[in-house]
Amino acid sequence: MRKVTFGGANSLDNYIARKDGSTDWLFMGQETDAKETASITTEFWKTIDTVVMGRKTYEVALRSGTTSYPGVKNYVFSRTMKKSPDKKVKIISIDAAEFVRHLKNQKGKGICVMGGGLLAKSLFEANLIDEIGFVILPVLLGSGIPLFHEMNHQIDLELLDCRTFKNGCVFVSYRVKK
Amino acid sequence: MRKVTFGGANSLDNYIARKDGSTDWLFMGQETDAKETASITTEFWKTIDTVVMGRKTYEVALRSGTTSYPGVKNYVFSRTMKKSPDKKVKIISIDAAEFVRHLKNQKGKGICVMGGGLLAKSLFEANLIDEIGFVILPVLLGSGIPLFHEMNHQIDLELLDCRTFKNGCVFVSYRVKK
Repeated sequence: MRKVTFGGANSLDNYIARKDGSTDWLFMGQETDAKETASITTEFWKTIDTVVMGRKTYEVALRSGTTSYPGVKNYVFSRTMKKSPDKKVKIISIDAAEFVRHLKNQKGKGICVMGGGLLAKSLFEANLIDEIGFVILPVLLGSGIPLFHEMNHQIDLELLDCRTFKNGCVFVSYRVKK
Repeated sequence: MRKVTFGGANSLDNYIARKDGSTDWLFMGQETDAKETASITTEFWKTIDTVVMGRKTYEVALRSGTTSYPGVKNYVFSRTMKKSPDKKVKIISIDAAEFVRHLKNQKGKGICVMGGGLLAKSLFEANLIDEIGFVILPVLLGSGIPLFHEMNHQIDLELLDCRTFKNGCVFVSYRVKK
């Protein structure tokens, strides 16, 4: 079974974006630690060959000029989007949990669930996520779109890694106990 | 001016308690790290002489058999509670921010704001909190009472400390940038 990792970034008060979807605050102080954070991303990127994301997360990527991630299969879940501006991206309109369960059972490297709190919620509830890895930024946004949404059950975790960066970010990763 | 520190514990998805107020999950695996966590608490305790908390947090303390914290002044904010079961605890019925501003201007050691997400919200909004220090437990509760509530403005932080424990807890502390 392929490993499914939920990755992203979070404010200390559990917001992945402002209420209007903007993520400007994610880049504060990034320049001071470009090397260190890049090495985590590079190492992780070697372990995966597939990225899945929700439509809203994809729209954020599009606004920043990213139409697809190179070297991996890109899937975007949406019932309203018919076609992606990038032919390397497949739009998936069936149930996300059903599709990810299907992917998990295929041969391949790891699968990364990007951003999307609501997508992660449905995958957590279906017990499809194996690991979580994200950066906690040194900010209380005060309001916004949560990274972790309400879920129908408690999920116990095992801490795998915790690193701090000069810019005050804390990277944490966990294994989901099953 | 005395330093005001917001302390507590949090699940990875930002809940300080279950929806019914229960905090049973806070004690999971605690025994494996009693010494390490106790040393953080002991060091912090030396820097304060005052504890303030909301009524709900106080009721949680009462249920666990704690009627007051020894060696410090205990204040509980409540408009409905008339009398504490412990004469060492003062019930404060005026506005929490106004009272804490008054305390900050008096001489003395640090002030600890315990638990209470709603109390912290009002003190954060009034720019009265100087530091945050809490333990992140390795669990997604799924639902509950948030540690960090919605606030009327963004608060930028500076990471001061980050330590991990064998039981998977991560202790983080931050200075509030003003």
